[in-house]
Amino acid sequence: MAETQPHVVILGGGFAGLYAAKTLAKAPVKITLVDRSNHHLFQPLLYQVATAGLSAVDIARPIRLILKKQRNVTVLMAEAERIDPQARRVSLGKAGELSYDRLIVATGATHSYFGNEAWEAHAPGLKTLEDALDIRRRVLLAYERAETEPDPQRRQAYLTFVVIGAGPTGAELAGALSEIAHHTLVSDFRRFDSKQARVLLLEGMDRVLPPYPPELSAKAQRQLEKLNIEVRTGARVTGIDSGGVWVGEERIEARTVIWAAGVAASPLGASLGAPLDRAGRVKVEKDLSLAGHPECQVVGDLTSFEQDGAKVPGVAPAAVQQGEHAARNILRALEGKPSREFRYRDKGSMATLGRKAAVAELGKIHLSGLPAWLAWLMVHIFFLIGFRNRFVVLFEWAWAYLTYQRSARLILHDSPREPPGGPGS
Amino acid sequence: MAETQPHVVILGGGFAGLYAAKTLAKAPVKITLVDRSNHHLFQPLLYQVATAGLSAVDIARPIRLILKKQRNVTVLMAEAERIDPQARRVSLGKAGELSYDRLIVATGATHSYFGNEAWEAHAPGLKTLEDALDIRRRVLLAYERAETEPDPQRRQAYLTFVVIGAGPTGAELAGALSEIAHHTLVSDFRRFDSKQARVLLLEGMDRVLPPYPPELSAKAQRQLEKLNIEVRTGARVTGIDSGGVWVGEERIEARTVIWAAGVAASPLGASLGAPLDRAGRVKVEKDLSLAGHPECQVVGDLTSFEQDGAKVPGVAPAAVQQGEHAARNILRALEGKPSREFRYRDKGSMATLGRKAAVAELGKIHLSGLPAWLAWLMVHIFFLIGFRNRFVVLFEWAWAYLTYQRSARLILHDSPREPPGGPGS
Repeated sequence: MAETQPHVVILGGGFAGLYAAKTLAKAPVKITLVDRSNHHLFQPLLYQVATAGLSAVDIARPIRLILKKQRNVTVLMAEAERIDPQARRVSLGKAGELSYDRLIVATGATHSYFGNEAWEAHAPGLKTLEDALDIRRRVLLAYERAETEPDPQRRQAYLTFVVIGAGPTGAELAGALSEIAHHTLVSDFRRFDSKQARVLLLEGMDRVLPPYPPELSAKAQRQLEKLNIEVRTGARVTGIDSGGVWVGEERIEARTVIWAAGVAASPLGASLGAPLDRAGRVKVEKDLSLAGHPECQVVGDLTSFEQDGAKVPGVAPAAVQQGEHAARNILRALEGKPSREFRYRDKGSMATLGRKAAVAELGKIHLSGLPAWLAWLMVHIFFLIGFRNRFVVLFEWAWAYLTYQRSARLILHDSPREPPGGPGS
Repeated sequence: MAETQPHVVILGGGFAGLYAAKTLAKAPVKITLVDRSNHHLFQPLLYQVATAGLSAVDIARPIRLILKKQRNVTVLMAEAERIDPQARRVSLGKAGELSYDRLIVATGATHSYFGNEAWEAHAPGLKTLEDALDIRRRVLLAYERAETEPDPQRRQAYLTFVVIGAGPTGAELAGALSEIAHHTLVSDFRRFDSKQARVLLLEGMDRVLPPYPPELSAKAQRQLEKLNIEVRTGARVTGIDSGGVWVGEERIEARTVIWAAGVAASPLGASLGAPLDRAGRVKVEKDLSLAGHPECQVVGDLTSFEQDGAKVPGVAPAAVQQGEHAARNILRALEGKPSREFRYRDKGSMATLGRKAAVAELGKIHLSGLPAWLAWLMVHIFFLIGFRNRFVVLFEWAWAYLTYQRSARLILHDSPREPPGGPGS
């Protein structure tokens, strides 16, 4: 490896970071990609892992496996703790330091509790595989506890599931939770009927799926209600504890609450010294670079980028486009050309709600119900990374469709793990 | 449900407990099956989950799903804490108490460190899905740490894997670890060659696979050595710490150590008040019942049962046979007939070591190499519970065979989880 090649450091192996690395496959650069987990995650299907429809392995793949053949990339499993744009250095904590010539920051976002951080313990969010497995464990354990709980009122609290936030993730989660209650678990329990379970979807705004056109929001709400979900719009959550949720003055007793209401940017963005928006996202120049630091670009969910008066949304296609764009700007710089402005091409968006229930906005074409669901299915299979994954997920879905079963119904780590070095399990 | 039906309580949903419940499917009894986890586990393939070849979901299935249609069974996810044979009661801790007319105790075994319990933290054993995921995480993390470790000696310690105990589980684990080093991870790392990894298999006795005939042990050792495993027999481990293993006076620097050397019976057996053998297993009468308590039978790995001067081994076929036998004794008692003595029918045993490497003892027929491997493959696919699992595992194996890939290479829960109620992730 010629040491004269410029060193490109990419922080984050999500959609933005991974596609940036791939775009530089043939470039005369040395790339180091850093991620704190060992896998790239197909986040659009994460709710399926949380609701036991898919296994972790179906939607995740080791980053170094994806990039195995790209010999100009070194993958490090480490956490970037601080960036020093002046010195062009990234601190990786115990794993040392990296100097860079070019930097792409793509460390994404996590959930935000809008200042109520104490809620997190009772209402986990859904961003990582660990989050998904945690939610799955809570949901399945709630049914198990209901079977051993003699008191009817306490049992009903175990059988009440509240999803806070009716964006695409919240709506998808609610749909899957309802299917679990009304199909998957029917006849599994002897002391109660799983159809007693209630699924509530709470939204602070006046309609579900707020980023969608109002007409599709209305259609989505009707589909959700048909799936036995209690949809409440204009519902402001004022408290969450281990026993339930407060909506204004009303108390909802529920042992399982899931947070799908807000995101905050990765705290790494703050160390760049650039202006941040309210969600902590980094405001960038039109070419995705940091003001005063053309060698540093910020992409994906961490980026605050305005176009035609609106923010580019934090969705996978935007992350892919930004990652590729940043990489192409590096290629242009190598050739002595100026960088180009980024422009987001919105190819549409879709959300699934349940079997044969979905909405899709594809430019001027608005779909709902079965056609939207089929479109969703095809797009999500197509973009899954790896033939094996595509095949297995297709098989799992066909199997689930025919049998109403969810194969990944395993409760793991009921009790908290001992710290390493402590007594084992 | 007529309250006059006798109540059969089964503790444990492993092979013994599950087959006992199934044998009573049409009996006029009310059954309660209690297990502390929600799934039945196909333990013979657990090493594949530990070595990232299979996912947890491929070899585990919810007990209540398996027994969904058997309406005389109630499944409780709870832990049996104590049995009172005089009062015929089982205490389930927070989940209450159960009274029984007939009891089948099938809570199995766990690892034993022969009094060196401090070793457990550094050398986990392999009995549960959680154990398997813990070992997988340690193995994969060791390679990740090696990639960020600049010191060659410390790096080699990350790349040294020690398996203690060369019974079937230890030999299978060593074989899979070697395949990971010499095939799966080749070209994945940039700072070292995965073939630098060493896999050591330590056995205190004078040959590997001690329960097998000496001739097959010799063949197994040759196959293991061909797979680049350093086999050491007569190796007595005298110490284990976070940095390695002591064998007599020799120090082996290794960051990953796996314990496959000994089992101890579930502590629940002690509360029965019956004599125990050295491993804590309950000594039973010839009909598997507790002396003086014909209504209580002990089956599976928890049982100490001698036949023709030898102990019945703690293997899946013995557990299945004992579970079915205990259930049939209950059926006979319902008809007023005396119980029958148990007799183990040994149909043979087999252990796989790597691709096309295995040994099998089928009565007088001894196989090794490819024929043994094919026999192993067929038997293990055939006995997997559920069509979906069989299909998916077959697909995973074919895929792994062709590509040398192990699809389940995900590192989850790097840091220990917060206790429930504490701050979330």
